[in-house]
Amino acid sequence: MPTFVQILDFIGTFAFAISGIRLASAKRFDWFGAYVVGFVTAIGGGTIRDVLLDVTPGWMVNPVYLICTGLALIWVILFGKSLIHLHNTFFIFDTIGLALFTVVGVGKSLAMGYPFWVAIIMGSITGAAGGVIRDVLINEIPLIFRKEIYAMACVLGGTAYWVGAVVGLESYACQLIGGATVFLTRILAVKYKIGLPLLSKNE
Amino acid sequence: MPTFVQILDFIGTFAFAISGIRLASAKRFDWFGAYVVGFVTAIGGGTIRDVLLDVTPGWMVNPVYLICTGLALIWVILFGKSLIHLHNTFFIFDTIGLALFTVVGVGKSLAMGYPFWVAIIMGSITGAAGGVIRDVLINEIPLIFRKEIYAMACVLGGTAYWVGAVVGLESYACQLIGGATVFLTRILAVKYKIGLPLLSKNE
Amino acid sequence: MPTFVQILDFIGTFAFAISGIRLASAKRFDWFGAYVVGFVTAIGGGTIRDVLLDVTPGWMVNPVYLICTGLALIWVILFGKSLIHLHNTFFIFDTIGLALFTVVGVGKSLAMGYPFWVAIIMGSITGAAGGVIRDVLINEIPLIFRKEIYAMACVLGGTAYWVGAVVGLESYACQLIGGATVFLTRILAVKYKIGLPLLSKNE
Repeated sequence: MPTFVQILDFIGTFAFAISGIRLASAKRFDWFGAYVVGFVTAIGGGTIRDVLLDVTPGWMVNPVYLICTGLALIWVILFGKSLIHLHNTFFIFDTIGLALFTVVGVGKSLAMGYPFWVAIIMGSITGAAGGVIRDVLINEIPLIFRKEIYAMACVLGGTAYWVGAVVGLESYACQLIGGATVFLTRILAVKYKIGLPLLSKNE
Repeated sequence: MPTFVQILDFIGTFAFAISGIRLASAKRFDWFGAYVVGFVTAIGGGTIRDVLLDVTPGWMVNPVYLICTGLALIWVILFGKSLIHLHNTFFIFDTIGLALFTVVGVGKSLAMGYPFWVAIIMGSITGAAGGVIRDVLINEIPLIFRKEIYAMACVLGGTAYWVGAVVGLESYACQLIGGATVFLTRILAVKYKIGLPLLSKNE
Repeated sequence: MPTFVQILDFIGTFAFAISGIRLASAKRFDWFGAYVVGFVTAIGGGTIRDVLLDVTPGWMVNPVYLICTGLALIWVILFGKSLIHLHNTFFIFDTIGLALFTVVGVGKSLAMGYPFWVAIIMGSITGAAGGVIRDVLINEIPLIFRKEIYAMACVLGGTAYWVGAVVGLESYACQLIGGATVFLTRILAVKYKIGLPLLSKNE
């Protein structure tokens, strides 16, 4: 039986893959191209993290991410037109993925002995870098650099994880606090349209 | 004396480098930029594979890929205008490269003990990812995601390799069947204009 | 107390980060996006080099690059409008960074036992690849492929380093000659508008 974390991982992977496949479909990609973009959106952040940490990426050990992306593609092919009605559901799923991936990235880096400032960066890469690769592949400026709080939520969540550890909380409590911080930061930022200041044109 | 595989490798590298250099020339790159794009097109897929497999990329061990790209650049500078008449020749050379690189990628992954589903992905990355990096560098949407059967031929070739192994064929026979599948799939798909379905715009 | 090389490293990192942040600001990135682009511009080349050499990237060991990018962001936010008057100063700083990063990349590769032709490529990647990633992230064709002598200066500097070693100079003298070659090549190329030939449109 899958654990609670495995279920969240599957939900997050599915939501990330859907976001890649939908953006690919807007650019008239074929099924294969859409699958690749969905897969890279889902596993890209974790792959960059694992290459930097010099360990084998998780998707090369467990085929669940390939299968999950395949289910996401089938879903979009069958129910594409109805996805727009599920906008809020997918926003929640996507944010669950962001929170979980961040916490997993922070925890994996700490377990390998890296200091917290590296772990926070690795958590943010795990959560946000897949979306950056997605936007590069569909030839758009990465969304997370211009709009909404997204990767910043990962940084705050990683920092909350660290504060939890500093005050002596157990590992699972730190993970819970970190994940909740990512989740709430993103939800509240979108609900109240909170963003970071833009840089003025200085060239 | 070079082996038959080394000759095919040289032909494939040359054809891949030519494709990168020609697309760079269409964007008015200088000689250095064109060389870099040609080189990355030729060795990019194998490099991503080797980084994921955690081994030293082949071009860092053997300078033949640098030299081959240099010859490709000289060729384009000298005979650029006549390349258009060699369209079919280069299409064949490019497809030879695709087939060989795929088989090499599958074989290398299997030799390292990875299961077949990882080896098929690694074969496809070896064959097709260089062209994706090329298209990102010239700021275009990657061609293989929208047009023709290309990376899909690698997936089919890798699968044929696997089927050969399952039914108990020798390693060299699996390689031959895998390579032939890539080659024929791509040739037939282009000749009969067979493509994958596009995703409809679902946003 | 910081050594002379550490001071040059800080100046180069600062200048590279400023270049990324300014180009991000021209695309209306938010502060976080600008920080990420600045950081990737500064450490991207060295990171690709270290992944290829299979060692831990320097910025994961020493937080000075994160701090330096933060100072660069504060600088642009506070004094953005005056940066245009400092154009020549930043050009010099950027060229110092290019020279130092190239020499560091060559030296690190040689110390790991790679031959000189690999070391020259690694030096060029260290100096120039961060700017390529920067341009991909802001969705522009990489500047160094089309304009001015830039990465070519790294190649010449790496070659000068090699010539120095061949004629039996001490390591520090090779580094000095290599760095000076990068610096002077770039300064002279810009001053006298020397560029490489463009490829004509051959498609």
